[in-house]
Amino acid sequence: MDPDRRPRLTPAIADVRRAVRAALPADGLILVALSGGPDSLALAAATAFEAPRAGVKAGAVIVDHGLQQGSADVAAAAAQQARLLGLAPVLVRTVTVGTGGGPESAARDARYAALAAVADELDAAAVLLGHTLDDQAETVLLGLARGSGATSLQGMPAEAGLYHRPLLGIRRSMTEQFCVDSELEVWNDPQNDDEAFTRVRVRHAVLPVLEAELGPGIAEALARTAGQLREDADALDHFAEEMAEDFAEIVEAGIALPVKALAAQPPALRQRLIRFVVASEFHLSLSRAQTLEISRLVTDWHGQKSLDVPGVKVERRGGRIVFHATGVGELTGHDPILEH
Amino acid sequence: MDPDRRPRLTPAIADVRRAVRAALPADGLILVALSGGPDSLALAAATAFEAPRAGVKAGAVIVDHGLQQGSADVAAAAAQQARLLGLAPVLVRTVTVGTGGGPESAARDARYAALAAVADELDAAAVLLGHTLDDQAETVLLGLARGSGATSLQGMPAEAGLYHRPLLGIRRSMTEQFCVDSELEVWNDPQNDDEAFTRVRVRHAVLPVLEAELGPGIAEALARTAGQLREDADALDHFAEEMAEDFAEIVEAGIALPVKALAAQPPALRQRLIRFVVASEFHLSLSRAQTLEISRLVTDWHGQKSLDVPGVKVERRGGRIVFHATGVGELTGHDPILEH
Repeated sequence: MDPDRRPRLTPAIADVRRAVRAALPADGLILVALSGGPDSLALAAATAFEAPRAGVKAGAVIVDHGLQQGSADVAAAAAQQARLLGLAPVLVRTVTVGTGGGPESAARDARYAALAAVADELDAAAVLLGHTLDDQAETVLLGLARGSGATSLQGMPAEAGLYHRPLLGIRRSMTEQFCVDSELEVWNDPQNDDEAFTRVRVRHAVLPVLEAELGPGIAEALARTAGQLREDADALDHFAEEMAEDFAEIVEAGIALPVKALAAQPPALRQRLIRFVVASEFHLSLSRAQTLEISRLVTDWHGQKSLDVPGVKVERRGGRIVFHATGVGELTGHDPILEH
Repeated sequence: MDPDRRPRLTPAIADVRRAVRAALPADGLILVALSGGPDSLALAAATAFEAPRAGVKAGAVIVDHGLQQGSADVAAAAAQQARLLGLAPVLVRTVTVGTGGGPESAARDARYAALAAVADELDAAAVLLGHTLDDQAETVLLGLARGSGATSLQGMPAEAGLYHRPLLGIRRSMTEQFCVDSELEVWNDPQNDDEAFTRVRVRHAVLPVLEAELGPGIAEALARTAGQLREDADALDHFAEEMAEDFAEIVEAGIALPVKALAAQPPALRQRLIRFVVASEFHLSLSRAQTLEISRLVTDWHGQKSLDVPGVKVERRGGRIVFHATGVGELTGHDPILEH
């Protein structure tokens, strides 16, 4: 795009700008995480337009994952686009992607680590991510496939710490239209067509079938579902935290909860209380199976021995469930904040 | 099946029987809702085997919906099978299916009304329904398509009042194998192949694609998800009820909730509290949109006028949200108990 030519205000441009406007923080520096794909490019362009009008400074970070031939050129081209849009500062970070948890997960870990590091260096107030409603719907379907309940179905939060996702209510096709209308040249990541990735199969094979068989509103329905489940999970987490404050007692080398208080709760809350106490005391995330086994010390007590989960020993003693550290544990479970 | 020939105890027969055994009530008469299809036929056969061993009397009800040519013959044949299995009493009820809410919903309403009437006449302790894990997975997907959050995703309960669903953990293919192993002749409802029904399309087109693209455990994952969301919803409903007891005040021609108490709750609980009060006082089910609009009288107060939803007038007055009856309202929303 010629920087001196202002694009016509089309519906796609208006919608994306409106979404960005609603998500801008009051002040400080914000950074757009830019890949050069249509989602993040539309986000970058809309942010470049809206931020100065809101008195906010906006820059961009491009993460070069170094996974594909020519990735440095792609990153440099995206950086150039960001500068032409008027974003500053614009930084490119090259990362080394490990192998932990599969290729998608390893790339994600490296990407978020780089974004957090840049935000920290520049003392940024927020990092804007270009995830769209379609990404959210895909996340919900991937969560369904895992079958791990509300936690994985609630999708990505619109706001979590540093990260903001202004486009969660915007269809991917709208960001593509934004780029067409703005004469922005998009980069199409070949990984987005690689059917080896589950997310790509969800995008190309699963969602279209759902739309064809269940009706065209399915992506919106999935996103709406994610929002409601997030509300439910937030409420239950809130009560679990409140109760942990009321009931948890620090004991030698650990923490304890009264059996009576646990028994009085509905199962969903009892399980969250157990998970919350273990997470906050030992920085460990219990699986559902582990949580249920600990729960049975309350609900199905017949003199069980102590339970060992990696990092924690749990036993029922004198009307309390006592959790002791046993050394370095393993982080299990799944962090929905860093899903995509 | 020749009633004098005892089937060999195959894995399918053992699994279905075990599931039925775990779900039998302690005493009284139970009724199996029998269609003649593999699910309910396996349920009937397993119940006929297990009930006498548990000291429980077991009969069967066949509902003839009168929707297809020869439905009376199908019902009579199923009744004859039930008698040969040793169930007693065996009743056939012919119902008239209306048109309200579409054909699937109208048939369901008529069916449940007939089952409830028979159970009442015979003073039955429970009605056993043949829904399988596959039905549960389909219900979750149908709920997703509606996008109405946890309520529609939690699927069918294993137990709700009169109704028990012992086979929710059993695959449909297992009930088919049960019938093969038991030499039971199954009736295949042609409606189960009628692609005009959304549920049939979910069964034949959606679930197979999900299994192919996301992995073979998807039906189990969906059912597991339903169970966890049910737990979450139960816990939130429990807290909403408790709070309604603590805070709701009966006022002239209605009921009121203090703004302060509503404002202090997380959104998921505030909304349930509003829904619960309206449901229990006026027997009306608020939609999500209506609930959110009422919520804004608390969270986004700028002197709004009173709101009218069918049957209820809601206003903020003197630190309270006041709900008044305005005449006959419309039942909206969706009852997941009678989903299938």
